[in-house]
Amino acid sequence: MEKRFREMKLQSERKLDQSKKGSVDEDITQLVSLLNSCEQYFTTSSCSGRTVLIDGASDSSDIHKQNCVWLFVSHHKVKSDDLVDAVGHSSGDAVMKFEPFVLHVQCRRLEDAQLLHSVAINSGFRNSGLTVSKTGKIITAVRSTHGLEVPLSLEGKLLVPHDYIHFLCQTANQKMEENLRRIHRFQQNLLSALPTEKLNKLQIPAPPLPQGSPETEEEKTSVYKGRRKRERHHQTDCFHGDESEPELDDCLDLFT
Amino acid sequence: MEKRFREMKLQSERKLDQSKKGSVDEDITQLVSLLNSCEQYFTTSSCSGRTVLIDGASDSSDIHKQNCVWLFVSHHKVKSDDLVDAVGHSSGDAVMKFEPFVLHVQCRRLEDAQLLHSVAINSGFRNSGLTVSKTGKIITAVRSTHGLEVPLSLEGKLLVPHDYIHFLCQTANQKMEENLRRIHRFQQNLLSALPTEKLNKLQIPAPPLPQGSPETEEEKTSVYKGRRKRERHHQTDCFHGDESEPELDDCLDLFT
Repeated sequence: MEKRFREMKLQSERKLDQSKKGSVDEDITQLVSLLNSCEQYFTTSSCSGRTVLIDGASDSSDIHKQNCVWLFVSHHKVKSDDLVDAVGHSSGDAVMKFEPFVLHVQCRRLEDAQLLHSVAINSGFRNSGLTVSKTGKIITAVRSTHGLEVPLSLEGKLLVPHDYIHFLCQTANQKMEENLRRIHRFQQNLLSALPTEKLNKLQIPAPPLPQGSPETEEEKTSVYKGRRKRERHHQTDCFHGDESEPELDDCLDLFT
Repeated sequence: MEKRFREMKLQSERKLDQSKKGSVDEDITQLVSLLNSCEQYFTTSSCSGRTVLIDGASDSSDIHKQNCVWLFVSHHKVKSDDLVDAVGHSSGDAVMKFEPFVLHVQCRRLEDAQLLHSVAINSGFRNSGLTVSKTGKIITAVRSTHGLEVPLSLEGKLLVPHDYIHFLCQTANQKMEENLRRIHRFQQNLLSALPTEKLNKLQIPAPPLPQGSPETEEEKTSVYKGRRKRERHHQTDCFHGDESEPELDDCLDLFT
């Protein structure tokens, strides 16, 4: 199993980036490099976060993605004039979305995946989870729900005032700032969590701080948290996204 | 480990529902019962899906949920007049959200979790994942991103016309319909996937069809899919939510 993992990691390192973009997003190049320099991990997909405007065919349902046209995409903060301009090109049902950081990492063993998963959860990516395939392939998916999804036009007709689009862009930009803070936190927490003897072998520069985000003690999320004991019982309070998931408490034990 | 699981399952069955609502959501009572009647599973939290209007304090960030007031919540289709009325009570920054089905299930063994995870993915809940804690507790989280998140007011001032709120309600209701179809598909796929000898012991009524959703062959998602071989390499195309996640292909092997 470990031999197979090493082969797959090597194969992954040799392949060219097959994405349309052709390169790792700027805000996560260090994080991706860090993970790929660890013998127990390699990344399989990533996105630093993005604001998009997608024009769907008016008669298509959500699931028929092939009918969509991408009017706008940015992995950085957006200028509202650009979005107003893009939505002017809509001929269908345009939807603006903010989608946060996503990362998929193949892991050598279950404990490696558990460590990464705990780091992700503690860094605010509360929709993260593992996949263990029948063939033993283990993937950690780092995800959150910290997004926006706002329909803007119907059959090409704009439904909201331009002022609202300006406001949405401000909101998306605030979410991008929070997203970058979480990525930064994730990278720091990962560095704290990786076994020291492995870390010393790597040349790790300090992760860059997001612009305008002083690193206070409050903002740092320590991976060393006390265990929270909670009764386990069926909850019909809806646990969605960023709400705490009591089932994950024990993951924190990895660091106690 | 299995003895500990049985104890926890028994403990879970004895506890009263601790949620504010006090009962399992109507549209998933059968599904929850089905899972809890299986010796290898018990549910720990669930929500059939909901449309909510949340009023946040204008100076609070996303993460400070304790500053939020719930102006509206419905686990069924919504009437736009109700939402217009609710947003009229906003004194802060109101956000309307559609949040789809969420389910957390504790599983006896990893293969039980893998089966449930595959069923979830094949039913359209593509953000599903596993958690394996240090103590060996295994949770399958069933999730998707099929949502809405739309800011509607700023410091109590409505930002959009009432017609737009009516349109949002229609959109949320369409998402609720798709959500119910996926829940139905999940229940059917689960019935197909559970080992026959265990299933015969259970008294399982046929899952109810969502209103207005004829069950065509196209809509049914078979759990018996051919294995898709894809090259494994780093993707910087962003895999978000419902986009296919090539790392999960091997999960389909469970049923081949």
